[in-house]
Amino acid sequence: MPSETHSKDLSGYFTEATRLRDNSPLKSLTKYMQNDPTLVSLGAGLPHPSTFPLAQLSATVAQAGRSVLDTTAPHTTLSITAGQPSGGAVEGLEKFLQYGNGRGVPSYASFARTHTESVHRPRYSDWDVVVSAGNTDAFVKALMLFCQAGDTLLLDEWTYPAIIGTVVPMGVRMAPVPMDGEGMVPEALDKMLSGWSEAEQGRRPRVAYVIPTAQNPTGATMSLARKQALYRVAQRHDLVLIEDDPYYYLQFGAYMDPATVTDASERYAGLPGLSALQPSLLSLDTDGRVIRLDSFSKVLAPGLRCGWVTCPRYMADKIQFHNETSVQQPSGLSQALVSQLLTVDWGHEGWERHLVQTQREYAVRRDLFVDLCREKLKGLVDFVVPDAGMFVWFRVLLGEKSRARAGVMDEVFEAMVKAHVLLVPGRMFSPAGVRDSPYMRAAFSYASPEDLAVAVERLQQALRPFTE
Amino acid sequence: MPSETHSKDLSGYFTEATRLRDNSPLKSLTKYMQNDPTLVSLGAGLPHPSTFPLAQLSATVAQAGRSVLDTTAPHTTLSITAGQPSGGAVEGLEKFLQYGNGRGVPSYASFARTHTESVHRPRYSDWDVVVSAGNTDAFVKALMLFCQAGDTLLLDEWTYPAIIGTVVPMGVRMAPVPMDGEGMVPEALDKMLSGWSEAEQGRRPRVAYVIPTAQNPTGATMSLARKQALYRVAQRHDLVLIEDDPYYYLQFGAYMDPATVTDASERYAGLPGLSALQPSLLSLDTDGRVIRLDSFSKVLAPGLRCGWVTCPRYMADKIQFHNETSVQQPSGLSQALVSQLLTVDWGHEGWERHLVQTQREYAVRRDLFVDLCREKLKGLVDFVVPDAGMFVWFRVLLGEKSRARAGVMDEVFEAMVKAHVLLVPGRMFSPAGVRDSPYMRAAFSYASPEDLAVAVERLQQALRPFTE
Repeated sequence: MPSETHSKDLSGYFTEATRLRDNSPLKSLTKYMQNDPTLVSLGAGLPHPSTFPLAQLSATVAQAGRSVLDTTAPHTTLSITAGQPSGGAVEGLEKFLQYGNGRGVPSYASFARTHTESVHRPRYSDWDVVVSAGNTDAFVKALMLFCQAGDTLLLDEWTYPAIIGTVVPMGVRMAPVPMDGEGMVPEALDKMLSGWSEAEQGRRPRVAYVIPTAQNPTGATMSLARKQALYRVAQRHDLVLIEDDPYYYLQFGAYMDPATVTDASERYAGLPGLSALQPSLLSLDTDGRVIRLDSFSKVLAPGLRCGWVTCPRYMADKIQFHNETSVQQPSGLSQALVSQLLTVDWGHEGWERHLVQTQREYAVRRDLFVDLCREKLKGLVDFVVPDAGMFVWFRVLLGEKSRARAGVMDEVFEAMVKAHVLLVPGRMFSPAGVRDSPYMRAAFSYASPEDLAVAVERLQQALRPFTE
Repeated sequence: MPSETHSKDLSGYFTEATRLRDNSPLKSLTKYMQNDPTLVSLGAGLPHPSTFPLAQLSATVAQAGRSVLDTTAPHTTLSITAGQPSGGAVEGLEKFLQYGNGRGVPSYASFARTHTESVHRPRYSDWDVVVSAGNTDAFVKALMLFCQAGDTLLLDEWTYPAIIGTVVPMGVRMAPVPMDGEGMVPEALDKMLSGWSEAEQGRRPRVAYVIPTAQNPTGATMSLARKQALYRVAQRHDLVLIEDDPYYYLQFGAYMDPATVTDASERYAGLPGLSALQPSLLSLDTDGRVIRLDSFSKVLAPGLRCGWVTCPRYMADKIQFHNETSVQQPSGLSQALVSQLLTVDWGHEGWERHLVQTQREYAVRRDLFVDLCREKLKGLVDFVVPDAGMFVWFRVLLGEKSRARAGVMDEVFEAMVKAHVLLVPGRMFSPAGVRDSPYMRAAFSYASPEDLAVAVERLQQALRPFTE
């Protein structure tokens, strides 16, 4: 049984701040209440529930597996009521409205735990989950376990800008690692670490940050072999891996050329749902060196601002304490809704149907957009077709004259704006501050099909002069 | 017109980290969309709203001014619907479910702004609000504007433990300032700063943290004269004041001795509602040196995890950018509910009725508890009767023999636990780590009236041996 293995102790890498993070002394008093049912507590400064003006929270939700916009599928209504726990599984509303600890409301945390167990099957025994207010919040807390000013974070050479915006003010340096069509290249990481000189480059990095599925901005997804190779390098250099995986559930498989497809529905026959998703880094982790960040932002709604972190318990405890001196926990309304929907109203099977529906939505968009790009942007751009997520990462095939001009990509950007189409310049994703990157990111997740077609036409017009 | 005065520029005190905090480059692209209505954007990585499974969010809420538990007052139902903005005032649900910026959903931020204008009437022109996930989250962000490892924070000699738990891991030192029955003593603060030696004590403090209303744990509320004196000291030493005011709306006035009252309702005739609240530090602030933290935790529900910060715009911008690399913004469900309830369903007047009802709930509890303590704990404890909030701060009148024993307050705590009653030991609120404090905090906010009576009986029994 692999789950009998205990995690490797990496607490020696904790920063001084992390060592100093502790349980709130007030929260330590709860043990007296648990041990003595006759105790009268005037301890906690809890508002009285009679002053909470909510008796019930309800939501009209889509039928599992149907879009909320599909008028042929009747919506259902779920409710969380004060004083009425839902069939033992979900707490009454008053629990979601009151203060709690930084681990989250039990039914929400329990859903995250059960779900993680079933999808990722962690291979060491002392793993646990802790709630987050989304992956950006979780990233800072995961990073701060091990990194402080002067330390270096290993990350992709193109990455999510909020990471750069978080790391720079902290005074944490960034060491960008080369990527290919599958994301971070393990050999490049190995080489960088093997040649690391503390004298010249500062303290040896302890943490690498990766987005293994549908990487932002490149759209790259790591194969299982890539993940295994990356994990081996992490073991060799005793790294912590922050696995930021918000697009994990948006896997939809390889692009099929429409010319080879007789029936369009063939393209969507193999959507993975929940049960055929690619293995995560967490699922390979025998040592407890992966801190996995999961979020409901891309599969329910970003406005919920809730997710969870999976890692060894001694790390989760520190993140809990950090929660207790920052957000406390995600909104109780968000936790209530997720807990009730995924545990009771939809349940696990309903959620899988919803995920298949969501995967189909993005697969259809990917196919539409890629079909258009192959037709209209041939010779103008190069790109790896994404198997998941929301993004296509274009390399502009600059002509010889354009290539020679400094700042040409600023000209490209201006030409696009003039043609009324907006993509994000590659330089915005560069931790190294590379300015003249020939890349740009297109999101196919939001624009209407008509607008996607218009955008590709305009792109063609804007890019052509630069590729001649 | 005082509001024509511009704030004093304190950005010279910003930490290096604060200087480096900037707008997300991606968010800077929104200007192109605003300037060009024909633009097709493939820029933002937004999930498609058709994948959000919520069509409507509803809540059954108490009639304004009636408790949710009052079965004689019919509840009302409010709803926020996707695609249907509510009378122009509140956005459709899809806006609350989507990504936004760190300033908050417009109608929520706008409510906070309008409300702050009407209650506090800021006296300089360039003030603004920015959303928070509650005051603990807001405190860290306000503190981090000006303080980093090695700096010193001025704060009350007894304070909210989460502040200590936040500040210690940051490596920020704490300089506790003596208090009296009105909170921080301005003369003591002045003396401490006038005698500050950078050589011996490190960099001169820039920030003082206070809880002016119903201070946690002492229950002390500053009079207007106290606030004015404190503000003058802040001006003299060019301090930033963090005004953490979660109990602001829980003002309920002076205690009336039941012996002097002919009719119990006399006691609750003067509840201040919204219109007769004491002036805040913000309302005295002519320079823009107060960062005010407001929260819905004590007046709607803590589980909402939302509040707002009021301060000069150039500081609010930095907090916004910090939001964008942490929580992004409070949960959209919480913002939707607050926005709809306080702008549309209850409106400002309904909210005032709710606040009066909430003030009455805590006033009745304060009176019940204080009546009991005056009757049963005479000679055992000393305390200032609070005019607001949730707490009574007892000083145990230790007898001569007890006073002489080191660790006697640990014995008192054990005696209480043995008598099945729990209060919070004073030492848990001490930034200086004072262990043998004769104080303890009682919360009268949560226990039932019967339990409050039982608690006081048990306290009497537990404390008596130590006071002889």
